[in-house]
Amino acid sequence: LTPKLTNIDTSIFTVMSALAHKHKAINLSQGFPNFKSDQKLIDAVSKAMHSGYNQYAPMAGNLDLRNAISKKFELLYQTTYHPETEITVTAGATQAIFTIISTFVKPDDEVIIFKPAYDCYEPAIKLNGGKPISVALIAPKYSIDWNHVEQCITSKTKMIIINTPHNPSGTVMHKTDMLKLQELTDGTDIIILSDEVYEHIIFDENLHQSACLFSNLKARSFITASFGKTFHNTGWKVGYCCAPKALMEAFRAVHQFNVFSVHHPTQKGLADYLDEPNHYLELSQFYQKKRDTFLNLIKDSRFSYTPSKGTYFQVLNFSDITSKNDIDFATYLTTEKGIASIPMSVFNDHNRDDKMLRFCFAKTDETLKDAADILNKI
Amino acid sequence: LTPKLTNIDTSIFTVMSALAHKHKAINLSQGFPNFKSDQKLIDAVSKAMHSGYNQYAPMAGNLDLRNAISKKFELLYQTTYHPETEITVTAGATQAIFTIISTFVKPDDEVIIFKPAYDCYEPAIKLNGGKPISVALIAPKYSIDWNHVEQCITSKTKMIIINTPHNPSGTVMHKTDMLKLQELTDGTDIIILSDEVYEHIIFDENLHQSACLFSNLKARSFITASFGKTFHNTGWKVGYCCAPKALMEAFRAVHQFNVFSVHHPTQKGLADYLDEPNHYLELSQFYQKKRDTFLNLIKDSRFSYTPSKGTYFQVLNFSDITSKNDIDFATYLTTEKGIASIPMSVFNDHNRDDKMLRFCFAKTDETLKDAADILNKI
Ligand SMILES: CSCCC(=O)C(=O)O
Ligand SMILES: CSCCC(=O)C(=O)O
Repeated sequence: LTPKLTNIDTSIFTVMSALAHKHKAINLSQGFPNFKSDQKLIDAVSKAMHSGYNQYAPMAGNLDLRNAISKKFELLYQTTYHPETEITVTAGATQAIFTIISTFVKPDDEVIIFKPAYDCYEPAIKLNGGKPISVALIAPKYSIDWNHVEQCITSKTKMIIINTPHNPSGTVMHKTDMLKLQELTDGTDIIILSDEVYEHIIFDENLHQSACLFSNLKARSFITASFGKTFHNTGWKVGYCCAPKALMEAFRAVHQFNVFSVHHPTQKGLADYLDEPNHYLELSQFYQKKRDTFLNLIKDSRFSYTPSKGTYFQVLNFSDITSKNDIDFATYLTTEKGIASIPMSVFNDHNRDDKMLRFCFAKTDETLKDAADILNKI
Repeated sequence: LTPKLTNIDTSIFTVMSALAHKHKAINLSQGFPNFKSDQKLIDAVSKAMHSGYNQYAPMAGNLDLRNAISKKFELLYQTTYHPETEITVTAGATQAIFTIISTFVKPDDEVIIFKPAYDCYEPAIKLNGGKPISVALIAPKYSIDWNHVEQCITSKTKMIIINTPHNPSGTVMHKTDMLKLQELTDGTDIIILSDEVYEHIIFDENLHQSACLFSNLKARSFITASFGKTFHNTGWKVGYCCAPKALMEAFRAVHQFNVFSVHHPTQKGLADYLDEPNHYLELSQFYQKKRDTFLNLIKDSRFSYTPSKGTYFQVLNFSDITSKNDIDFATYLTTEKGIASIPMSVFNDHNRDDKMLRFCFAKTDETLKDAADILNKI
């Protein structure tokens, strides 16, 4: 009865949220808001259920929603994805990512990923017999060494996965990065999987560098996005991906046998809501305020940090506080001090100690205050 | 940019529903009810949203729902699946099936399936490099030739997929079938994937033979089930699977990186609703009446048939009507006569002509009447 993946643990988010729950700790580990999403959106989904959107959505997604997504790309990035052929609604961005990898990665194919990395890329690659090729981001800025990337590209490279704004580090890719990626992959068949689930959460002077802004990249890219992160409903599990027609056709051939389609009334409710750009245009400002509140509250603590540039995560360095490794320290803070975070090393290769913890600041100001009260005493 | 699966068409359900829509045909093709589900259930999901069940559900599913599922197994089948370790809520039964296959099927593994078969098994097997081994069901009763199955079992057999009540034929497996399957696989490591999404839709004197009723089978089986089919909300895409702990652990290792979790408010709403057994115990009677209504309305038509024993599908044989093959005839009926069905051959190997069409009778009595009016004139 041997499964293909062995030594796969339960994801750190499940583990830490359960530990936080058990010890009644403030849970800044798994990334989700602890405030309500807009009543208007909830009412729209509720209305869709009551007015009968309860049977299978079209396989590629509710067409109103695909139209609204298409409009968003034109408004924000002045680029077109055709709703009929180039946009597919998915059961969250994770399902899009898993399906993209399953569609293309064959045994012995290589996929370049940047470490630290969100935890779902690597198992999906391995499950399909592929080989993850890790390129370490260079701390403290988590910048990309493009020479290193160039050395890693071989005839076996099937895909490169990028993620900006970046979970867990809270850094962003710059225009120069995207141009470099475009240059390195130009003329190849390498597929770019651009995980942009935090596209609307970007701070200070930074601009989101979507892969769709670079036409030679766009031609080989999948972009994945998430409504849960944008509209504060991570539990609804609706996201989408976009790609040029030929890539999207291949994706849908697999998608239709994985989930077939996605929660219909939620799609219908999101369609109306997404059509109002302020619903996402104001998000960066909203979260920048949260970040500033949190950092201001802990400015006299013994943690050191570089302010997050995007996502709703802030990394704190604890090397001045303890010689414990980050897994032990995160466990100690959860069980003994009542505050849960994610140890950075779990996003990295094993047996590392990054002396850093990732905290989610998508929380009410009260929760951030309570969290800071604890962190200030560590 | 070659994907792994080639020659995969858009699923027949997408194609036929689109064709029905285009030609304003009565759509008895894709299986979904055209009546509303219980207002009480819709209100329960709505309430869950309004009371804040909008962030990530636990990866294995909302615990209230898993408890309710566990209770259902005790009530109906006098068997126990532990909610913590042996039940996982999925984004529909299709996602469960895709994930089970992805978890276990390695390149060159063989998977025995019975033809005609629901269309998602074979692509999932192939995507993982496995080899589908088809065993033809013996018409007109679609019975299983167990000698043939025995001949197909080799050291490479990783899995056998069964489906009862059976889509598309509307037949059911009998106790003798299950005992034979148990005998043939006893002492092996062959995993049984038992697709039981129509478990609550079974007619006349037939009893549902769940794999969990046979302890030596249960020990190696995944059972997949669907709330969409049971509670008339196919568009909500919530289902579940059950298996002994070790199998379920392997499943969850993959599930968590495929969808992570499932629409939370829907799970919470379903938990309360499922706790009332009458909500599923009355379903067989409800659909048996629909079947009888439909068959009574077309009894003087030129189609011949054996009444469906389960599922909400009725197969009609048209060999007395035309020499057209079933794909052409289904297309003709949709575009020229205003009634859409699914040609049987698409569930079978290519280039066959089964001279049969599958009709979905999960429709209002008015729709069944309108459909019969057309069929009676063919
Ligand atoms: C799927 S649970 C993880 C949520 C998340 O995106 C994170 O915490 O990084
Ligand atoms: C996922 S669409 C197909 C619905 C169905 O189960 C069927 O028509 O057989």
